[in-house]
Amino acid sequence: MGLFTADIKTLDDLFLHQLQDIYYAEQQITKALPKMMSKATDAQLKQGFEMHLKETEGQIKRLEQVFQMHGHKPKAVDCPAIDGIIKEANETAGEIGDKEVLDAALVASAQAVEHYEITKYGTLIAWAKRLGRDDCASVLQQTLDEEKATDQKLTAMAESKINQ
Amino acid sequence: MGLFTADIKTLDDLFLHQLQDIYYAEQQITKALPKMMSKATDAQLKQGFEMHLKETEGQIKRLEQVFQMHGHKPKAVDCPAIDGIIKEANETAGEIGDKEVLDAALVASAQAVEHYEITKYGTLIAWAKRLGRDDCASVLQQTLDEEKATDQKLTAMAESKINQ
Repeated sequence: MGLFTADIKTLDDLFLHQLQDIYYAEQQITKALPKMMSKATDAQLKQGFEMHLKETEGQIKRLEQVFQMHGHKPKAVDCPAIDGIIKEANETAGEIGDKEVLDAALVASAQAVEHYEITKYGTLIAWAKRLGRDDCASVLQQTLDEEKATDQKLTAMAESKINQ
Repeated sequence: MGLFTADIKTLDDLFLHQLQDIYYAEQQITKALPKMMSKATDAQLKQGFEMHLKETEGQIKRLEQVFQMHGHKPKAVDCPAIDGIIKEANETAGEIGDKEVLDAALVASAQAVEHYEITKYGTLIAWAKRLGRDDCASVLQQTLDEEKATDQKLTAMAESKINQ
């Protein structure tokens, strides 16, 4: 918690806190993705993780832009949720020998990450609009669209190549 | 991890592991919901959490049914992801004084929980079908439909009453 929760007094404070939370989460995701990439055996999945890493770097830049638009310096606060999701991904995938089962587990973990991001960006956009900051909402919407597209690609991969 | 990950050799093992993971998660959610209910100030939100608690108890029974159909005793394994999501919910909501801001934070946390469940049940259903267990998939689908409906109700609440 970068802001102590006692410091969250307004929706504006809550928006800033959530922004700091997802800023931390995106950074953790850039650390997790190369590990997932190196574990993946399916070429398409490996490439998907690589593309998403580049996308995540762009999403971090977009968050920095929103911080500035909102008059704050970019700052990350601990986000126990993403830590837990990544820990679970590492633990589950850690020792699976069969490559198809491993890929299936990696796709499932990546989807858990995507869904966490989708819910967080959805909330941020709703709050930005409520605060009259359609400019911030519009930047965040670009990321939400990317996350949803990634989730759909993962679903398609889970239903076609992987798990056959 | 109830199964050591080294014991996950087949998609069937992975399915069972994921089932144990969500069984633990649902139990943690039944512990978290009464706290969220007592913190919520909006009557509709409070009632929503109460309804979802009853629904979650039914979802646990459904998981027990799937364990049995699959020839295993119901068993929970640690799920660091749900622990992190709930920890974050408690930390954020813990000290917010303003009741409307608190309700907004509670809705956001509840949606993070829902999205975690939606991704996990989605994965379980895909794997059940792949394993030729349409009977298990069909039971799990009932829960997925409920979770999606809950998420939609929360979105409607976030967009109307709360955050005004």
